[in-house]
Amino acid sequence: MIKIILNGCSGKMGKMITETAKQFDNLQIVAGIDKYPAELGYPIFESTKAVNIDYDVLLDFSRADALNDILDLTEKTKKPLVICSTGFSNEDLDLIDKRSKSLPLFRSANMSLGINLINSLLKKVAPLLYGNYDIEIVEKHHNQKVDAPSGTAILLADTIKNSLTDKTEYVYGREGNSKRAQNEIGIHAVRGGSIVGDHDVIFAGTGEVIELTHKAISREVFAVGALKACEYMSTITNPGLYNMDDVIGL
Amino acid sequence: MIKIILNGCSGKMGKMITETAKQFDNLQIVAGIDKYPAELGYPIFESTKAVNIDYDVLLDFSRADALNDILDLTEKTKKPLVICSTGFSNEDLDLIDKRSKSLPLFRSANMSLGINLINSLLKKVAPLLYGNYDIEIVEKHHNQKVDAPSGTAILLADTIKNSLTDKTEYVYGREGNSKRAQNEIGIHAVRGGSIVGDHDVIFAGTGEVIELTHKAISREVFAVGALKACEYMSTITNPGLYNMDDVIGL
Amino acid sequence: MIKIILNGCSGKMGKMITETAKQFDNLQIVAGIDKYPAELGYPIFESTKAVNIDYDVLLDFSRADALNDILDLTEKTKKPLVICSTGFSNEDLDLIDKRSKSLPLFRSANMSLGINLINSLLKKVAPLLYGNYDIEIVEKHHNQKVDAPSGTAILLADTIKNSLTDKTEYVYGREGNSKRAQNEIGIHAVRGGSIVGDHDVIFAGTGEVIELTHKAISREVFAVGALKACEYMSTITNPGLYNMDDVIGL
Amino acid sequence: MIKIILNGCSGKMGKMITETAKQFDNLQIVAGIDKYPAELGYPIFESTKAVNIDYDVLLDFSRADALNDILDLTEKTKKPLVICSTGFSNEDLDLIDKRSKSLPLFRSANMSLGINLINSLLKKVAPLLYGNYDIEIVEKHHNQKVDAPSGTAILLADTIKNSLTDKTEYVYGREGNSKRAQNEIGIHAVRGGSIVGDHDVIFAGTGEVIELTHKAISREVFAVGALKACEYMSTITNPGLYNMDDVIGL
Repeated sequence: MIKIILNGCSGKMGKMITETAKQFDNLQIVAGIDKYPAELGYPIFESTKAVNIDYDVLLDFSRADALNDILDLTEKTKKPLVICSTGFSNEDLDLIDKRSKSLPLFRSANMSLGINLINSLLKKVAPLLYGNYDIEIVEKHHNQKVDAPSGTAILLADTIKNSLTDKTEYVYGREGNSKRAQNEIGIHAVRGGSIVGDHDVIFAGTGEVIELTHKAISREVFAVGALKACEYMSTITNPGLYNMDDVIGL
Repeated sequence: MIKIILNGCSGKMGKMITETAKQFDNLQIVAGIDKYPAELGYPIFESTKAVNIDYDVLLDFSRADALNDILDLTEKTKKPLVICSTGFSNEDLDLIDKRSKSLPLFRSANMSLGINLINSLLKKVAPLLYGNYDIEIVEKHHNQKVDAPSGTAILLADTIKNSLTDKTEYVYGREGNSKRAQNEIGIHAVRGGSIVGDHDVIFAGTGEVIELTHKAISREVFAVGALKACEYMSTITNPGLYNMDDVIGL
Repeated sequence: MIKIILNGCSGKMGKMITETAKQFDNLQIVAGIDKYPAELGYPIFESTKAVNIDYDVLLDFSRADALNDILDLTEKTKKPLVICSTGFSNEDLDLIDKRSKSLPLFRSANMSLGINLINSLLKKVAPLLYGNYDIEIVEKHHNQKVDAPSGTAILLADTIKNSLTDKTEYVYGREGNSKRAQNEIGIHAVRGGSIVGDHDVIFAGTGEVIELTHKAISREVFAVGALKACEYMSTITNPGLYNMDDVIGL
Repeated sequence: MIKIILNGCSGKMGKMITETAKQFDNLQIVAGIDKYPAELGYPIFESTKAVNIDYDVLLDFSRADALNDILDLTEKTKKPLVICSTGFSNEDLDLIDKRSKSLPLFRSANMSLGINLINSLLKKVAPLLYGNYDIEIVEKHHNQKVDAPSGTAILLADTIKNSLTDKTEYVYGREGNSKRAQNEIGIHAVRGGSIVGDHDVIFAGTGEVIELTHKAISREVFAVGALKACEYMSTITNPGLYNMDDVIGL
């Protein structure tokens, strides 16, 4: 049984992680850290300094300004740290990088296991199919989203682009008269209603179509990703900066 | 049992219609007309002039230059005529229009029952949902298709536009930073491999998405549409120019 | 501008309706009724008896036991009442029915505009396509759902069944060796993860497939449905029991 | 440039392969073998014995009873042989197995690159996601298909089953009241119209859904697979029995 301490346990994501952890047979949140109280079924320390129990992984889903405190605790215990907070400055990121020389740290830009999995698969699938299969991405998001295409769509397209020796060209929609060039990657941004976020990577070949699809339902997806990262990091003793690609391990 | 005579029976579509007709319990091809022989299980007349048997509907899936012959036969028998040939000149279309004052004629630009059905539904659905639901169209076709978006996507978009009092604006893909305007209709043209033709009309609202989707598999779809038109026209005695909207009857 | 009073404004759904109403240009919540206070941007009466302002529609999204109070208020004002609470006893339903002889009342078993719209469309589409198109339903829900198929899938299937003269037979999955009979309606219940609720009605014909699809994203869908019902009922002066089919009006 | 000799060039698949080969820049059909003549743009030998030119790969898309002839030619030239014919007896399969000890032979039960790719991916993806993601398969085929679920759906399900340590149980549809067990794999067989063949493997987790999807459009898919196999085998000099998993190489 993997013993987890959760920093930021009383926040929205903290509560969601507490709930989601019940799905996992092999891990348990043994304590939380938060200055606000909450009824979560485990003891809560007021600060990282107050932590006086044994644990296997420290999971942080709080705020960027907690970075020094969680690194200090990790320095003391030498136990793996999973960082899921966001909004880090470049200085913060440099610090994480530096401390990973001596500590087992995890940080990922996107905590969805599904998006990271599809991204990993694309590195293998795209070079195999390119040339005989045309590659297109369709993404769908709510009508309040300002940027198009989505950051995730660009992440996936860049992964495809970088996996190929041919120079690909992104095409953001089509109108008029001209045939598709083989090296195009069409990226289509559908916007409407309150769609949470769908991404569909299409490989259309002669006589068949293969699709890798991801549909986000809710923010719970980040809770599953965080706990999967804890599961993985609990086995890590070597210092280093780990991310979702390591968890997926393809 | 509706008795059909099929003009152009020995061609590719003629053979397909002959095969597809076996699905229908209530109609039968009693004879064909074609200058080329074929083994189709019914007698074949060499020309419209040679037809000397009774029938309920004359179905034409031949060539535009057969128009005068089939109109002459129809003039003689006063029986309904279903015209599925394509490539008519404006003169031809005027002639069809004129003769429909005294004869029951059917002609439709698109013989797919499915596309016509979705087009009919949009006239009712779009005005009901517009304002609270964002409308987007995604179409997919093979990589040899030159025009984008597809003629069918434009047909569907125009039907939506014409059903609304607001002035809508077509958007053919998105890139950059700006929120969707309510009166946009996004039209996205995916191109790849040998995809026959998919059209997806999306109504994305707050908390739900409704989609009307059409997927073409093969040209057989035109055979079913032609026979459905024969079924409908067999009940028509009044002169007039009928089309798929009449068959669908919504 | 349609003036709405919202009974149950301080509850979860009440707050959601308050938020969703901002999407509508033509209606405004002018007051709420709730014994709990809340900051909603409009005055809140403690009970229906306290209401002393003019309004066009009374919208109830509270609890079944508020029924007598909202009917009394409606009796006094003669203004349309939209009932969205659930959990009514048979006695309650009889009372609603009886009072609808003299008052303009609205109640619908399912407040999703999308599901009701698809249900309405099926009454027209199923008889048109049946015989040449095979009808199948695929529904997807989360892994905690106990009943299969979903109540909504059964609603849609029953609507199809009742629209046809042939006697259809429901088939809940397939295994083994036997061809599909024409009068089968396949109903497939996918269960997994936290899927909110998808329903896909498939009409598969020769050469083409037509699909009517609904995807639920969140409970906000009921807020939109409730406000659409208010919009419709604001035009009604005749007594009667109205439902979502009237709102959709196909 | 890879030089291919195509056995069975004048048949339906032979012609399709000839056409599809034009998509490939790096291979060329330099000759065919067939007792029937055809206009294919390359010379045609009447039998394997008549072949007197150099080649890199022998591609067989003919009939099971050609097996001895193609093995004899391969014995003589020591060049790789790609066998795409079907209908082999157990004796034939033993013979292929035996001869692969000394010759580079390729044979695959399913020549679709897409299906084989998805099957390969499942070996990695299923163990990673199982436990937190529920696995379901939806397949769709035409209404004349006798067996359910499809052989391909069973292939994919077996691959998942064999990749897991937990004992999974196939469920072929759901009706009644009971919650999904974690170790279920739901397999749903939709039947309708002339659907060529769709397979959708669904991983539904908390907050997200991942899907690997394959849609067959036409038999051309087997031509692409055959030529991809030739591409791969042209690099092989070691004896052995190779299949699509080797081509995909994940």
